[in-house]
Amino acid sequence: MQNITLLIHCKDQKGIIAAVTNFIVKVEGNITYIDQHVDVEQDVFFMRLESQLTNPEISLAAIKEDFKQTIAQDFNMAWDFYNKDLKPKMALFVSKYKHCLYDILGRYSAGELNVEIPLIISNHIDLKPIADQFNIPFYHVPFTKDNKEEGEQQQIALLKQYEVNFIVLARYMQIITPKLIALYQNKIINIHHSFLPAFPGAKPYHSAFKRGVKIIGATSHYVTEELDEGPIIEQDIAPVSHINSVDDFIMKGRDLERIVLARAIKLHSERKVMTYSNKTVIFS
Amino acid sequence: MQNITLLIHCKDQKGIIAAVTNFIVKVEGNITYIDQHVDVEQDVFFMRLESQLTNPEISLAAIKEDFKQTIAQDFNMAWDFYNKDLKPKMALFVSKYKHCLYDILGRYSAGELNVEIPLIISNHIDLKPIADQFNIPFYHVPFTKDNKEEGEQQQIALLKQYEVNFIVLARYMQIITPKLIALYQNKIINIHHSFLPAFPGAKPYHSAFKRGVKIIGATSHYVTEELDEGPIIEQDIAPVSHINSVDDFIMKGRDLERIVLARAIKLHSERKVMTYSNKTVIFS
Amino acid sequence: MQNITLLIHCKDQKGIIAAVTNFIVKVEGNITYIDQHVDVEQDVFFMRLESQLTNPEISLAAIKEDFKQTIAQDFNMAWDFYNKDLKPKMALFVSKYKHCLYDILGRYSAGELNVEIPLIISNHIDLKPIADQFNIPFYHVPFTKDNKEEGEQQQIALLKQYEVNFIVLARYMQIITPKLIALYQNKIINIHHSFLPAFPGAKPYHSAFKRGVKIIGATSHYVTEELDEGPIIEQDIAPVSHINSVDDFIMKGRDLERIVLARAIKLHSERKVMTYSNKTVIFS
Amino acid sequence: MQNITLLIHCKDQKGIIAAVTNFIVKVEGNITYIDQHVDVEQDVFFMRLESQLTNPEISLAAIKEDFKQTIAQDFNMAWDFYNKDLKPKMALFVSKYKHCLYDILGRYSAGELNVEIPLIISNHIDLKPIADQFNIPFYHVPFTKDNKEEGEQQQIALLKQYEVNFIVLARYMQIITPKLIALYQNKIINIHHSFLPAFPGAKPYHSAFKRGVKIIGATSHYVTEELDEGPIIEQDIAPVSHINSVDDFIMKGRDLERIVLARAIKLHSERKVMTYSNKTVIFS
Repeated sequence: MQNITLLIHCKDQKGIIAAVTNFIVKVEGNITYIDQHVDVEQDVFFMRLESQLTNPEISLAAIKEDFKQTIAQDFNMAWDFYNKDLKPKMALFVSKYKHCLYDILGRYSAGELNVEIPLIISNHIDLKPIADQFNIPFYHVPFTKDNKEEGEQQQIALLKQYEVNFIVLARYMQIITPKLIALYQNKIINIHHSFLPAFPGAKPYHSAFKRGVKIIGATSHYVTEELDEGPIIEQDIAPVSHINSVDDFIMKGRDLERIVLARAIKLHSERKVMTYSNKTVIFS
Repeated sequence: MQNITLLIHCKDQKGIIAAVTNFIVKVEGNITYIDQHVDVEQDVFFMRLESQLTNPEISLAAIKEDFKQTIAQDFNMAWDFYNKDLKPKMALFVSKYKHCLYDILGRYSAGELNVEIPLIISNHIDLKPIADQFNIPFYHVPFTKDNKEEGEQQQIALLKQYEVNFIVLARYMQIITPKLIALYQNKIINIHHSFLPAFPGAKPYHSAFKRGVKIIGATSHYVTEELDEGPIIEQDIAPVSHINSVDDFIMKGRDLERIVLARAIKLHSERKVMTYSNKTVIFS
Repeated sequence: MQNITLLIHCKDQKGIIAAVTNFIVKVEGNITYIDQHVDVEQDVFFMRLESQLTNPEISLAAIKEDFKQTIAQDFNMAWDFYNKDLKPKMALFVSKYKHCLYDILGRYSAGELNVEIPLIISNHIDLKPIADQFNIPFYHVPFTKDNKEEGEQQQIALLKQYEVNFIVLARYMQIITPKLIALYQNKIINIHHSFLPAFPGAKPYHSAFKRGVKIIGATSHYVTEELDEGPIIEQDIAPVSHINSVDDFIMKGRDLERIVLARAIKLHSERKVMTYSNKTVIFS
Repeated sequence: MQNITLLIHCKDQKGIIAAVTNFIVKVEGNITYIDQHVDVEQDVFFMRLESQLTNPEISLAAIKEDFKQTIAQDFNMAWDFYNKDLKPKMALFVSKYKHCLYDILGRYSAGELNVEIPLIISNHIDLKPIADQFNIPFYHVPFTKDNKEEGEQQQIALLKQYEVNFIVLARYMQIITPKLIALYQNKIINIHHSFLPAFPGAKPYHSAFKRGVKIIGATSHYVTEELDEGPIIEQDIAPVSHINSVDDFIMKGRDLERIVLARAIKLHSERKVMTYSNKTVIFS
């Protein structure tokens, strides 16, 4: 039995849920999960549905074609069916920080992530030994003002070569170019080490320390052209106090970064995230 | 336009969601919210649906009758329709602790609770001035081993007189009798001042202090005949440390008790809680 | 036996702790609590000490004089002794929101706050019934652009008349004038309904909703001339998701506001807060 | 300049703080941190002090001897000086679970832990490849009812050989023998996958699921002869709901286990934990 995931969004209309669930019944699918959300303000309907296909003679391709010509057309939907049993391919971009890389590769090796990691790309050579340790191809793609275009081309070529589905910036300290963002819209996940929108940009722990906050945070979000302004996927926080130095903030923050990024990877790879209006709907 | 809430549970079967949503479309309801849950282990299906009825000529009574004879029968459902615009009537049981009572009455007076509070019942006279302050009828129903039956009769008579829908024990320090529990099954909410199942029974803060825990908690649950063993509605926690005395535990715990009880009242009064197998499904 | 609290800050120097603890031993005080903090970056030393005076023949006044002429001079300290058994007087400023007012008065009446509340001041008449309900004098001091000076004079006169030690803005929707801020430096506590420095100013819940954050917050801080920029005393957060409307944010936020403000009141009234460089040291 | 840490506990008495701080001044130490705690109920005094020794001619050995013959004797103290610059040696005990092992070794390799890890001991061979990956000696010490004594002897011999200071059970699924516990009293850290004292023993996530709790937890504690009853070092929690299966509990729990164990290792290795009456004092 094949397991599929269906994501839908469209203008809110009467009868969508009934139409979709009837369709699944028609193609002999067993609905194992359904969740929906209506953004009342913007009048948008979202749905996530998981199903077991019980009749092997009805292929996913045929179902897609049927859906496209009937329901999808009737309601003018944006939609996609995913084969739950296929793991998406995730590229890791890193610079010099080790903690998120170790955390992701540890989880990966422990079998916790529903992804394949075909390659790691870095603008520095420093973390190659860790990639070697975990037996994952490592590509050193230097990235400076002068070689920007060349670097971007190399990145894109590698991503194509390895058929990468989405990208995770595990404390990658370079701006992503607009061209790459356009190619992977809502498919590049960044971890920012503050509770956005507080402290965007560089050195957020230093700014948080200076402001005397009592709680620090971390935020994972999709990368858009506006720095640290993309749709937020996940946030978490930790208490701090006057006894903590900036270094303490940084050390406590590492745990936040690890966890908030790992959760975002999990949500995205399990197709539980939908985006619109620079926000996310998380079906978890 | 009337707003209704529909709660359903039954054995999990194919086609339930489609059948129910079709029914709502048929009676000209606009589905504004739908959520469902399947307990895969026990094979039970749960659904919560909110709808605006758009045709004033189709009454809620007629809808109920129709539903009963069609869908409910086909799927052998336990179900209920609620008029969202009617506030449930909530009785407060208290003893001597003031903090939960003040908190609930403050929220009630600030318009935060979707309930009516027709009366307060207490086994002590101490908190009558607070009831007076908020203009709510207060009944002193002493409750001792000797007058148990009489006390119970008085309680039940008052609850009937005021047409009470559910009961909240705001740190009521008496065992509820089996007869009352049977009359208000899954309709009596208690707040226990520990993170159940840790520290059931009396003096949980003292036990937590003795054990040297680093986190304390509070738990709101429905009352069943097994003390502190009923279905859990809501829990929350607060950090403690070696610098905290038992009195600090008690003081910090008060904030937990207030909030955890208030959330349970909100969830229950908005019909977001379903119970089965001594557990709750919370549609929030 | 009298209980006293001593707060000190000064340039960090060798021998301060030994000197102070020797002094307390000399005046026959029993040290029941001592905590200190050094801001290494700024080279400032902070200390909080509680003591029981065991010799009734040595008065607090005499101790103060002795301390002033010895230790305080030697180390060039800013310092103050407080009589722990005297409750500080707290004025409440409110506008139209009820929830923080009910919460504070409920806690006050339940005996949880170590303060006296001699009066409530408001720029609107709306909440007078709540003040009446709790038997606390209520003063309606309208405050508009036109009567600014008059309003301020009336406020200050009332604060003097009632010998107010500190002020709590329980969702008071008016700017505090520089003159009042100067009179009560680090003695006016505000509750801001966001996780500062995110979303300062008006309508933070609306901004948070628009940004699509996954966590909302509240912040209590001392009022300075820069709006929402004063030293932070306490912060807390609550998770939100796409299913929450702006109204849900507001409702969840109320619980944060209540708790974060109540904690700040408790910390301030127990002299556990010291301020410097627009930050706080919290000895808790 | 040498950095030292001093831990003290003794019966609470007048003048301890002054005596100790005077002593440090005498040996030309610069106090960089001091914290103390009095358990009022049990009349025990605890202190943690960090100091920089500024005179290279006064050795730590001499200081110890001086302290022993003066202050320590006067107040009948239990005490120890530690050289902050020496990393304690930590042995890892594992069985088959990978997640805590990967997490600890990742942190270790990223330079986050103030320890040396000279060896890993396991009752199974399964995790040897991970030890190899991180270049740490791995010893397979089978442990069954039949070879208990032999296994214990082998463990103890290895611990001696590598001069191990403390032991971390990173989901080690074997009971530790009384002899080993006696040798490493309050020096064996276990991670239990529940919010103790709730759900001690085997399969806590299954029990938590069955009880319908809304929050799960993890607890790190020192190992004593009573299973899961030792002094608690650190606890943390995560929310769960009806939509989570037992497998979800287990997966969410892994993040708790990783973090709660890592925090305990950090606290212990930095000598911030003192134990008494089966509880801990955490100076953090």
